[in-house]
Amino acid sequence: MRMYDLIQKKRDGGVLSDTEINWFIENYVKGEIPDYQVAALCMAIYFRGMTIEETTALTFAVRDSGERLDFSEIHGLRVDKHSTGGVGDKTSLVVAPIVASLGVKVAKMSGRGLGHTGGTIDKLEAIPGFKTDIPVEKFKKIVNEVGIAIVGQNASLAPADKLLYALRDVTATVDSLPLIVSSIMGKKLAADDDCIVLDVKTGSGSFMKTLEKSRELAQTMVEIGKRAGKRMRALITDMGRPLGYAIGNSLEVIEAIHTLQGNGPDDLTELCIALAANILNLAEKGDYKTCENMAKQAIVDGTALKTFADMVAAQGGDPNWIYEPENFPKAKYSYTVTAKESGYITSVDTESYGVASLLLGAGRNTKEDVIDPAAGIYLIAKTGEAVEVGDPIAILYSEKKDNFKAAEERLLKATVIEKTKPEPQPLILDIVE
Amino acid sequence: MRMYDLIQKKRDGGVLSDTEINWFIENYVKGEIPDYQVAALCMAIYFRGMTIEETTALTFAVRDSGERLDFSEIHGLRVDKHSTGGVGDKTSLVVAPIVASLGVKVAKMSGRGLGHTGGTIDKLEAIPGFKTDIPVEKFKKIVNEVGIAIVGQNASLAPADKLLYALRDVTATVDSLPLIVSSIMGKKLAADDDCIVLDVKTGSGSFMKTLEKSRELAQTMVEIGKRAGKRMRALITDMGRPLGYAIGNSLEVIEAIHTLQGNGPDDLTELCIALAANILNLAEKGDYKTCENMAKQAIVDGTALKTFADMVAAQGGDPNWIYEPENFPKAKYSYTVTAKESGYITSVDTESYGVASLLLGAGRNTKEDVIDPAAGIYLIAKTGEAVEVGDPIAILYSEKKDNFKAAEERLLKATVIEKTKPEPQPLILDIVE
Repeated sequence: MRMYDLIQKKRDGGVLSDTEINWFIENYVKGEIPDYQVAALCMAIYFRGMTIEETTALTFAVRDSGERLDFSEIHGLRVDKHSTGGVGDKTSLVVAPIVASLGVKVAKMSGRGLGHTGGTIDKLEAIPGFKTDIPVEKFKKIVNEVGIAIVGQNASLAPADKLLYALRDVTATVDSLPLIVSSIMGKKLAADDDCIVLDVKTGSGSFMKTLEKSRELAQTMVEIGKRAGKRMRALITDMGRPLGYAIGNSLEVIEAIHTLQGNGPDDLTELCIALAANILNLAEKGDYKTCENMAKQAIVDGTALKTFADMVAAQGGDPNWIYEPENFPKAKYSYTVTAKESGYITSVDTESYGVASLLLGAGRNTKEDVIDPAAGIYLIAKTGEAVEVGDPIAILYSEKKDNFKAAEERLLKATVIEKTKPEPQPLILDIVE
Repeated sequence: MRMYDLIQKKRDGGVLSDTEINWFIENYVKGEIPDYQVAALCMAIYFRGMTIEETTALTFAVRDSGERLDFSEIHGLRVDKHSTGGVGDKTSLVVAPIVASLGVKVAKMSGRGLGHTGGTIDKLEAIPGFKTDIPVEKFKKIVNEVGIAIVGQNASLAPADKLLYALRDVTATVDSLPLIVSSIMGKKLAADDDCIVLDVKTGSGSFMKTLEKSRELAQTMVEIGKRAGKRMRALITDMGRPLGYAIGNSLEVIEAIHTLQGNGPDDLTELCIALAANILNLAEKGDYKTCENMAKQAIVDGTALKTFADMVAAQGGDPNWIYEPENFPKAKYSYTVTAKESGYITSVDTESYGVASLLLGAGRNTKEDVIDPAAGIYLIAKTGEAVEVGDPIAILYSEKKDNFKAAEERLLKATVIEKTKPEPQPLILDIVE
């Protein structure tokens, strides 16, 4: 088999066979296919797309490119939730404790963030002492005892994805549906869960800018998960606005705790309950309405918060910080951004909000960058709200006060203020199963 | 400037600016842009194409990526002829002596062949003693004295093309019109000619398989040559059949000599006269009909052959071999391929004929391969001719008799024999200027 022939076939609109796709991934991981040929193939896939069979084969090849986890020692149904990534998305920190407190198991391996947002692992590491590199035997023990553990992604999981993603990132081939699907689902399926609920973001600040494209992405991932024997569901949710008010690692942990305490922002609470209810429903804990009530009750009676605190304790952190989030250290400097015109915030470019938080130290430009846990943005006014000239719209937090001006400029440019009040938009746009 | 942004812009159908294209070529040659990003850009260009302005900028950037020749010391108009490459195409060996004998100057730098055909340089090196690595001052002196010299391409000419071509060759991005144009014309324009006549091949065995595509290629190259201040013309000629009967280096030199002696195959003679007449006409030696008669007369009176022999002598070869081509050594082994069915040869896949001659030793698979000058194919029956089962259709020549069977198989598979006599097809399909 020759890589040249695979590139040419895809370039000409042909369909790659399972054998060809497996051969490509296997030899790319072995270092026997050069990056330039893979870059050409990725661009050809960008233009020609892939059939569901090709996408399935590519996903399974990525899944099988490294170690596969075995969680059979964990008792009970194992569930996972995955978001395609958004600005200020701290739902995992809320949803996972809720469902774990209700008897399903969450054995979560999560990635670090690269680019404009920190990952779940980066957020949890804002809790002093919290360990994310726990040996697998201890990890399974914690899940069996507490119901939940969240650790960093195993380096030997889906190595093909690491290579492919790094290459796509520098060759303008990230925004290709089959490549996105095989990346996300290749990693997810290498773990050993029974039920997976996907949160597919749509709008600015997400992979897919239109609802139609997002629906196609959701349908493809659900279909491939089912072909791998998983129970699957996907919510399509609006990323045309940041979720909650907090962007940045410890700021987001604090907001997640407030949400588990029943005092979270409306949009974040709504989405977390919906995600939790869908997971519980997939895990056959009752009909959807029952599952929704169970999730709400787990917040009201404090069992979800206690589960979160127990997990923090089991992973080496101080559970008191969860009950008293005012313990989290504040950033050295803060800076208030005010509105430069009056009217309603009609839309925001959430991706630019993410870039602003990166400038403040909340994300990584390169793998070597160190995240400042206290850095970030706390929003005062969000989409749909009225502001007057001089009203605060956000507070910036950073150790690097020199970057405040650049972050402010990004934020203001990304915030559209108009005279007419915008129609309220639903947060959850569709459910695919 | 970031290469990523150029890839994304082209991927999305944008138009690259002159500044962007110059930056890309300059930094690629410096080694500052990795092959994987260039491969992604080439594939995006394959799908999106380029405007005439982009193609011009890319061609000029390739031209300017290395040394540019200065032939101002050569007296009189300098002309060149370039073929997009075909199987059994020995026209340069005939056309260049004809026009040089009629008072225009041919200072030709030619490439070696890679793939299924030997280049003009490989063919000339079949003449014992013939030197193709002549210092530039001596080269100019020979052109001034004899009217013609043909040497190997200067390594410092258009280095961007060498890099790009090697990459395109392994990433399935050779067949892209703007990339073909910038490769051919980038090199041609780095030389210092006044008039260029292009022979654009169409049909199997050429870059462009349809007349429409070939016409577009011809028009683009003519336009860009004019923008660079050259007098330009292009003939579109049929490569749906091999040219003449000989394929292979010394076999082709012998056939070229026969043509210069007035005993060449009809198709080869017709094309050589047409190319020579177009060059002479572009060089204002008279109207087309006059130029055509001059070219024919140069064959009849022997001045073209004498010019060829003088060039061979000036470049270190024995001119007697030109007057007595039976001196060329024969291959050690020969093998006759016979027809396996009766009927008319209605079409042949000339590319496969080329591959068969490569198997016999007439071409190079890699740059390191050594060509066997006597290896090749001599055709007995060509397209349009009737054959009976058992009639010879070709004689194979090689030092490697083990490869005869594989070459025969290729040849027979590439030769379509049908019951109905095909309509004769014209050789010269169009002229673009």
